[in-house]
Amino acid sequence: MTEQLLAPATSRTAMQCLLDPRSVAVIGASRTSGSLGRRVFDALESGGFAGAIYPVNAQATEIGGRRCYASARDLPPGVDLAVIAVPSAHVLAAADDALAAGVRSLVVITAGFAETGPVGAELQRQLAAKVTAAGARMVGPNCLGLINTKSRVNASFSPVFPPRGRVALSSQSGALGLTILELARDRGLGLSTFVSIGNKANVSSNDLLEYWENDAETAVVTLYLESFGNPRKFAELARRIGRTKPIIAVKSGRTRAGVRAASSHTAALAASDEVVDALFESAGVIRADTIDEMFDIASAVSMQSLPAGRHIAIVTNAGGPGILAVDACERGGLKVSEFTRATRATLKSFLNEAASVGNPVDMVASAGADAYRRAIETVLSADEIDAVIVIYTPVDPAQSGMILDGIRAGIAGARATGNVKPVVACLMTDGARPEPLVVGGERVPVYVFPENAARALSKVTRYAEWRHGNFGPATRFSDVQTAQARALCASVIAARGDDWLRPDELRQLLAAYGIAITPGVAVRSADVAAERANELGYPVVAKLTSPSLVHKSDVDGVRVGLGNDEELRAAFADLMRVAQTLSLADAAVLLQPMVGRGIEMMVGVANDPLFGAVVGFGRGGTDVEIERDVHFRVAPLVDRDADALIRQSRALPRLLGYRGRPPADVPALRELLLRVSQLVTDVPAIVEMDLNPVMALPVGEGCAIVDARVRLASDVLRSTAGGRGQPAGSAS
Amino acid sequence: MTEQLLAPATSRTAMQCLLDPRSVAVIGASRTSGSLGRRVFDALESGGFAGAIYPVNAQATEIGGRRCYASARDLPPGVDLAVIAVPSAHVLAAADDALAAGVRSLVVITAGFAETGPVGAELQRQLAAKVTAAGARMVGPNCLGLINTKSRVNASFSPVFPPRGRVALSSQSGALGLTILELARDRGLGLSTFVSIGNKANVSSNDLLEYWENDAETAVVTLYLESFGNPRKFAELARRIGRTKPIIAVKSGRTRAGVRAASSHTAALAASDEVVDALFESAGVIRADTIDEMFDIASAVSMQSLPAGRHIAIVTNAGGPGILAVDACERGGLKVSEFTRATRATLKSFLNEAASVGNPVDMVASAGADAYRRAIETVLSADEIDAVIVIYTPVDPAQSGMILDGIRAGIAGARATGNVKPVVACLMTDGARPEPLVVGGERVPVYVFPENAARALSKVTRYAEWRHGNFGPATRFSDVQTAQARALCASVIAARGDDWLRPDELRQLLAAYGIAITPGVAVRSADVAAERANELGYPVVAKLTSPSLVHKSDVDGVRVGLGNDEELRAAFADLMRVAQTLSLADAAVLLQPMVGRGIEMMVGVANDPLFGAVVGFGRGGTDVEIERDVHFRVAPLVDRDADALIRQSRALPRLLGYRGRPPADVPALRELLLRVSQLVTDVPAIVEMDLNPVMALPVGEGCAIVDARVRLASDVLRSTAGGRGQPAGSAS
Repeated sequence: MTEQLLAPATSRTAMQCLLDPRSVAVIGASRTSGSLGRRVFDALESGGFAGAIYPVNAQATEIGGRRCYASARDLPPGVDLAVIAVPSAHVLAAADDALAAGVRSLVVITAGFAETGPVGAELQRQLAAKVTAAGARMVGPNCLGLINTKSRVNASFSPVFPPRGRVALSSQSGALGLTILELARDRGLGLSTFVSIGNKANVSSNDLLEYWENDAETAVVTLYLESFGNPRKFAELARRIGRTKPIIAVKSGRTRAGVRAASSHTAALAASDEVVDALFESAGVIRADTIDEMFDIASAVSMQSLPAGRHIAIVTNAGGPGILAVDACERGGLKVSEFTRATRATLKSFLNEAASVGNPVDMVASAGADAYRRAIETVLSADEIDAVIVIYTPVDPAQSGMILDGIRAGIAGARATGNVKPVVACLMTDGARPEPLVVGGERVPVYVFPENAARALSKVTRYAEWRHGNFGPATRFSDVQTAQARALCASVIAARGDDWLRPDELRQLLAAYGIAITPGVAVRSADVAAERANELGYPVVAKLTSPSLVHKSDVDGVRVGLGNDEELRAAFADLMRVAQTLSLADAAVLLQPMVGRGIEMMVGVANDPLFGAVVGFGRGGTDVEIERDVHFRVAPLVDRDADALIRQSRALPRLLGYRGRPPADVPALRELLLRVSQLVTDVPAIVEMDLNPVMALPVGEGCAIVDARVRLASDVLRSTAGGRGQPAGSAS
Repeated sequence: MTEQLLAPATSRTAMQCLLDPRSVAVIGASRTSGSLGRRVFDALESGGFAGAIYPVNAQATEIGGRRCYASARDLPPGVDLAVIAVPSAHVLAAADDALAAGVRSLVVITAGFAETGPVGAELQRQLAAKVTAAGARMVGPNCLGLINTKSRVNASFSPVFPPRGRVALSSQSGALGLTILELARDRGLGLSTFVSIGNKANVSSNDLLEYWENDAETAVVTLYLESFGNPRKFAELARRIGRTKPIIAVKSGRTRAGVRAASSHTAALAASDEVVDALFESAGVIRADTIDEMFDIASAVSMQSLPAGRHIAIVTNAGGPGILAVDACERGGLKVSEFTRATRATLKSFLNEAASVGNPVDMVASAGADAYRRAIETVLSADEIDAVIVIYTPVDPAQSGMILDGIRAGIAGARATGNVKPVVACLMTDGARPEPLVVGGERVPVYVFPENAARALSKVTRYAEWRHGNFGPATRFSDVQTAQARALCASVIAARGDDWLRPDELRQLLAAYGIAITPGVAVRSADVAAERANELGYPVVAKLTSPSLVHKSDVDGVRVGLGNDEELRAAFADLMRVAQTLSLADAAVLLQPMVGRGIEMMVGVANDPLFGAVVGFGRGGTDVEIERDVHFRVAPLVDRDADALIRQSRALPRLLGYRGRPPADVPALRELLLRVSQLVTDVPAIVEMDLNPVMALPVGEGCAIVDARVRLASDVLRSTAGGRGQPAGSAS
């Protein structure tokens, strides 16, 4: 603290001045209680902030016993932060004044900017430009403000000052922000920093992530998100920060993606919300379904260590809550498995006759403090257990105090031996939200219902597994010809505009990235067809192709298993009749050799409006939309993304060799996924791709891409850094 | 009340005496405060019970100012209920005394019975026998007791007396019962009756359902269940009662069904918890995942009418919570669809510029009481809307009182015009659990989070749809030969014990119920095979059969598309080699004509240890366990169960005609499901059945059962009325 005070102001970045200010001006502080400016001023005063506070208001000379400045231009030099809470028409002038006086950062509470329409958006653009030009940073406009609990800065109009702690919180909704702060207080969850980011005209949640990465006060990050400004940046930051500081997010505002044109299978399947799930999973972000759950998880992860595995012990004095906990654990992928004989014997040695020494340990209603203490010590020190849920349901409320002492003693006893396994508790002592249990210097999170405890623990466990996993970068293949692939796409777009690639172009493009399609030749006469079929070798497949034909099998445009010239000629004539009936332009017949028996999979790429290219993998064939087995990852894939995609498919048992059938060449599928990811990352003009079916052949035989489609577009709306404004009309 | 008092005691049933007693003895009431008996006595006294209270205790002459009886035998005649809270060793004697004195019903609080092991179970059996012999009824043993809020009877040791209302509650866990009562109080949810059923030695939840069906005080039934005594009875009762009184249940204790032998596909797929889901869905029981959610739903359904459809309007003053509500609505199958032009115009006429008149109606932070009032009136009266979620997030807490008045006025205004559409509210005014909003004589449930409001409403909507549906009984086919089917099974069991049926037996059994299998003949020589194949007509399929062979395709035992004698003879020789390699006893080859292209489905039957026969339907083929598309219903199926099974399959789009292919003969599948259900209901010896694949052929062509397997067992553990005891070791 002393060091900081002695350091010259300029050695601190504008972000530091913003989030941990030593002096704060409140522009729009007024003598009328209840005005926003006055509420900010009061909050700052009553919060216990030790730094200088400067009210600014042309109508007053003194506010709350402090000298009031007529204009921000009169402020002393080196003010870290100015909070602006004046009517929107005066915000630009106030910002000008503050920046002219050398204020390093702004919080603009005032609403009436981009959230109201084009006029407000223009005003916001001007405001942001001023901030950027001055080298300052700004939170808002249209926000609740920010809080730093260490310096006791409440630069917001929240009447609640949350307890100090290690959880940082960013809320894209000011209204929810107020609720969230109340929840934090009621649940005893300590915060480091709270920021209501409002319209994100300058500081975004990504900026906050970067700040919190190096903030010694912050150990856990929680985010309430409605939109992503720059999702790729988010993913990259989250993946890096999540390795040391867990990130928990509620992402609302699921896009109803129906609007999007969905001409390829993959595009139809990639609904934005699934992509959010995929992004979070890949980046190790813990996704909470509700604000309440976000707090449940934040409590566990900020108060306790990460579990080393999935094996949970449950200690309870009542069967019902124990069963609820088991159910919720199993739903969440945790294992409430049997204890070893030794653990059971130890439990039996001190528990009474009626108790069950299985898992859950049901000590029955008569269990006292000592039973709790010893049972908790026992299961915490059992090697087969990674984490413990303690449940106490008071049968006689008069006993509760003693029992809680017993629970504390049990945890303390285990800790004394160096045991750090996580413990969470469900104390059904009162309908209200309970405070954490304090055990020495440690806090044990307490939940009202066993389900909450189990669910939080299961999400924390999944995060721990992600964090323990391999963080190798994506495999990059060097045998690729990026320049050629790009040139090919550019020339197609130059010649035909946005379009689907033709068979020969497809083959070339994929070949440039080491991806081979099952050989095939396009023919336009029966004689040439017969000639080529003899070269390929019978049996062959004949497929109708035409630039205007997207799904061949829908129009009966595929003939398989053609064994000789006669069958081939009949099929050719047949397909040409189909082409004529449909008036297909430039129709041809593609001949391919039959691919031996494999498992029909598919690899695809869609262009998500938010996330850019996403790579999909799953069951292939003509009915992929029915199967709904395709899962997605945002490109570029790292190796573990490719593995996860393969693991997620319902076809996994089949790929691994089901019922005595040969296992498929999974490494070949993995390589295909990574090559496709590299291709679409290097060549952004590729906006859709379906490799379907991809026949997964037995180990050593690779996979065969039987059919492929690629669509190019010139002005690709890939993720941009500019999209920080909120969608118009949303006042959150 | 007066009438009741004048009626002779004998005109009331023992269940009425138990659940609505006019006089209560407390056996084991003591002078020591804190003893269970004394706590029951105190609860009864302080609850405000107007009837007679008789403490019974040999050690006292007076307790709490009331004359104490030395023995229950001394009680005056005609006591309705005796609560027994003496040590377990004295319970039988106390029960004898009470029953001898003519007490009509018992609540046995004391633990130490079936939940502790075989000795306790025997004690419980004796206790139950005494009660039955006396024509009395009993709740417990090992329970918390019961509460009737109308008569203000607290015959339990719960210190909490819940508010009076129309929700009946049964808890199989005493410990959770205490928590549940606290929750009811904290949330302002009114109860009619609360019963902690303990070990269910006499009164089960089914008995309570029957009582509540005719209880004028009860409009909604809530159940916390850990096990079913008689699930078929439960389903039958629930289906009947649910048509007028919603039933909401938390069912915990998901069976880990790994233990069960799973030799057929269907049995392997039918995990008990899915069957519980199916049972609830079929019977219209609303399944809550947690106790908290049970209360969320009970609040909505007890305070508001049922929605007529799925279209929800959301009125909010903040975007964030509005978006959370939309997400949760859509997850729950509700539709937050656009308003008509007229509704939008009305909203626009009074809302301010910045407000959004779409759905959600986002009135922004400045919205006052009047905006709330008019917006609520408008959306409630909009024809396109079936229910409304009102969200209020205080920006300035000082305004909250006025805004709540505005919300009340809006609802009242709509009600004044006869509008009865349901309204639920999310008032983020405080971290604590909020009380319902009182609007005239009506109460509007209030939730802390928008997600809870939306989730409760979505479950209520699904229930409303069930209730509006067709309740026709199951189609019964009269062209069936039950006696012959039973005789066939009996003779097989007599000859071979429990076994799989052989092809000819299968064919006969199914034919008796009008179910035809694709014709086929078993042959044992190549010459006969060729002869029969010519009769059937080429192409044919040849399948290896043997009593010891369960899954043919696992052993490469199927040859399809055999076009002539030569191919057939080769296949026959091949299959016989396979049989030799595997040393299959009594191997033969089954010849069938090839079935034309259809959709591979399956129909199956498994015998669930709890529910008896369950019928499954879904995607068929060899990989059904991978597909995991099979859903279940408890037999006998009613017609809507069959429809639901077909609708639930992922193959539905294909059955309805996908991408230009012909739709399948769905009525034929439906008839097959209903015939199978009738067969297994009439012939309980059938414990497993796989009809797989069932080829669903185009409309008018029916379906072809290509392969079938049926297993018989003589001592079938079908659902029994006797299974009321709890599993040993569970002290809930």
